[in-house]
Amino acid sequence: MSERWKVVIVGGGFGGLCAAQALKSKPVDVTLIDRRNYHLFQPLLYQVATGSLSPGEIAAPLRSVLSRQKNTRVLLGDVQDIDPASKRVLLADGASFEYDSLIVAAGSQSFYYGHETWREWAPSLKSVEEATAIRHKILYAFEVAERISDPAQRRAWLTFVIVGAGATGVELAGAIAEIARQTLKHDFRSIHPEEARIILMDGAPRVLPPFPEDLANKAARTLAKLGVQVKTGLMVQDIDKEGLTIQSRDGIEHLEARTILWAGGVTASALGKILATRTKAETDRGGRIKVGPQLTVAGYPDIYVVGDLALSIDSDGKPLPGVAQVAMQQGTYAARAIVQKVQNEKERSPFKYFDKGSLAVIGRWSAVANAFGFHLSGWPAWLIWAFIHLMYIVQFQSRILVFIQWAIQDLTFSRGARLITGAAATDFNFNNELASLVKKSADINKVVQSQPPARYDL
Amino acid sequence: MSERWKVVIVGGGFGGLCAAQALKSKPVDVTLIDRRNYHLFQPLLYQVATGSLSPGEIAAPLRSVLSRQKNTRVLLGDVQDIDPASKRVLLADGASFEYDSLIVAAGSQSFYYGHETWREWAPSLKSVEEATAIRHKILYAFEVAERISDPAQRRAWLTFVIVGAGATGVELAGAIAEIARQTLKHDFRSIHPEEARIILMDGAPRVLPPFPEDLANKAARTLAKLGVQVKTGLMVQDIDKEGLTIQSRDGIEHLEARTILWAGGVTASALGKILATRTKAETDRGGRIKVGPQLTVAGYPDIYVVGDLALSIDSDGKPLPGVAQVAMQQGTYAARAIVQKVQNEKERSPFKYFDKGSLAVIGRWSAVANAFGFHLSGWPAWLIWAFIHLMYIVQFQSRILVFIQWAIQDLTFSRGARLITGAAATDFNFNNELASLVKKSADINKVVQSQPPARYDL
Repeated sequence: MSERWKVVIVGGGFGGLCAAQALKSKPVDVTLIDRRNYHLFQPLLYQVATGSLSPGEIAAPLRSVLSRQKNTRVLLGDVQDIDPASKRVLLADGASFEYDSLIVAAGSQSFYYGHETWREWAPSLKSVEEATAIRHKILYAFEVAERISDPAQRRAWLTFVIVGAGATGVELAGAIAEIARQTLKHDFRSIHPEEARIILMDGAPRVLPPFPEDLANKAARTLAKLGVQVKTGLMVQDIDKEGLTIQSRDGIEHLEARTILWAGGVTASALGKILATRTKAETDRGGRIKVGPQLTVAGYPDIYVVGDLALSIDSDGKPLPGVAQVAMQQGTYAARAIVQKVQNEKERSPFKYFDKGSLAVIGRWSAVANAFGFHLSGWPAWLIWAFIHLMYIVQFQSRILVFIQWAIQDLTFSRGARLITGAAATDFNFNNELASLVKKSADINKVVQSQPPARYDL
Repeated sequence: MSERWKVVIVGGGFGGLCAAQALKSKPVDVTLIDRRNYHLFQPLLYQVATGSLSPGEIAAPLRSVLSRQKNTRVLLGDVQDIDPASKRVLLADGASFEYDSLIVAAGSQSFYYGHETWREWAPSLKSVEEATAIRHKILYAFEVAERISDPAQRRAWLTFVIVGAGATGVELAGAIAEIARQTLKHDFRSIHPEEARIILMDGAPRVLPPFPEDLANKAARTLAKLGVQVKTGLMVQDIDKEGLTIQSRDGIEHLEARTILWAGGVTASALGKILATRTKAETDRGGRIKVGPQLTVAGYPDIYVVGDLALSIDSDGKPLPGVAQVAMQQGTYAARAIVQKVQNEKERSPFKYFDKGSLAVIGRWSAVANAFGFHLSGWPAWLIWAFIHLMYIVQFQSRILVFIQWAIQDLTFSRGARLITGAAATDFNFNNELASLVKKSADINKVVQSQPPARYDL
């Protein structure tokens, strides 16, 4: 029986995985628990949603990443509770694990500002399942539009709205524009996919709010060139099956759109809320747990919180953003702090975030980058983006493949991963949807077997 | 309005797609209807099921394959009925399409010999959804085994049974053996994945019944070397959640196995059964529709049936097997026959199958091949197999990627696509399953945080 210091890490995202890797060969026993059997490279998830990559290409099995790390064990399990008194984490299946040090890296979830019904009509981009659901939704929209002849209905099916113009929203809008204008260009006979409307909206006065204004403006211009309509200063009032209700300075407007994607806010994961209750920790509006300079919860020096779930205040008094870089640096910091404690070394100096800058990709060979005071855009920013993302992907194998996919796609505009699978057909009610639309249409046989139709105005 | 000859093709598998491609630039209007938006390269589906490839890598969007073929239109739809009197096919969504010539390439489905309840516990390998379900099932079995300590339970979770020792069964068994003995070797702390039992069973007296005996024997020896137990001359009496009941010469035996895969028989697709009723066509036991020497249904010279759904008798009086080669040659033949009819040329000579041989892959660098009288095994057969399969994959992009994946995996034994996604967690009832098992186990904390356990006997 081992008597070594027991470290439990909850979550195998950027924070949890970096913490586990920083504990390699250290005199501790590590247990990493995640609900998933893989680490997901979230920054490329929008490429799964838009059919450029397969899920397997941006995910690495946690077991395989940590396979050779003898002091580390990976467990597939759903942590439901944390008991700081007995120092245990409790799983949904009834098992419980004791810890000497706990690193909570349970991340965030998408937030619909209290309108949970919107989730059904406007999926967000947090998981592989949601990414594939979004892919199905986008591809189905073109399939349905091809099958119906009513112009208003077609227009609604060929309208794509992305709510939230942060990095994810900009990336999704750019990719959908490329699908419509390039990838699918020759694929249909009744519709012209390149006439699809792609609308990117936000409540803020401009896209990419965290970026400097000149880069945000450049991004907006690139989006316009790709055919994306950017609408800012708008508030979403309602989302349903038919579309959105939007409030702007000009009043309330209804927009018919069958594909709505949510790139809006996030909130703390469910486990974060439980941890806050158990430790009576201070939280912010988004449910993030306030941590001290050493990333521990006040009163609980053995509980570290890292990543999206942590409300960590920088030296200049501002909270750190919920990005991969912060999570990775925090995970590594927490792991080192634990090792120092175990080895009875002097206490670590406070966590200090080293900001390497921010990046957002807009489309093929185009991005904006803000790093070390330099503002880059266009293909130089894209190259930096591609390089950094490739380097970060955990597995050697994925890295090569992703690179080759990109090379091929940039040469051919094709997208390999354009499958509609799973329960999509019933989820989106394709047959029923069509059945009612087909009735309203003229004889579809005529549409189908005639020559390509005249262009219609969207 | 076009007055050209209307060809409707039902199904975008090997037969339907080859037919469509053979009609390129011909004076006909082609409508290809499929329930899926992609052509699936079925012979590599077992690699999706065993985590080597992602679905996107063996599937090509039908629209994209036929994109530049101006006389061809692809429709996503579920053909539910065929009316030979009015010459129309009817879709589930209520639309109907008129044809002058119809090619039915609706394929086959897996058949459980009337025991439909078995399907739940023993998925078969016919679709992307089933392949990913099988992948989840295999990976989950190891995850559950890692979490429980009762030896009998563990043994049941680490027992994998493949029913049916044709090419698919042999390929699955070989791949699972490699997962257990190589890929996962270092990934677990409580179990030794290489001690998993992999059992391949069949009612026939040997594996690969359609192959010559010497090759079948070689395959059986290779499987034994990989650690697969081959059990022949067995009849499955029942399959349930706990395992299988088997009848052999020695009597009835119950085998505890949590992962059972069905590589047994196939039967005609549902549409095939409808077509048989509508045309009063002769069928065989498997529901295949008897076609004449020109691949048309008796009495309906405008209805061609090709591929798995066709009962086509060769010149030596034997029915052709349900393999990709037959479907492709038949699809091309039907297309050419239609063109000749449209162009008022003389009637085509009867369909003649050109047998290029058969192949089955057994594991890493090992296969058996029977072609033009040559019997090959080991790596020469594997090279032929790899070459042929790469050449056949429709898309340029997939072809390169699949090749690189293989190269990497053969060097590293790693498998990139080891994701458990979707509803798997609830489907396989992971948490409930564990909850009851965990209770029976000793304190799981001890197992988890101790050193790797002593080897146990499976």
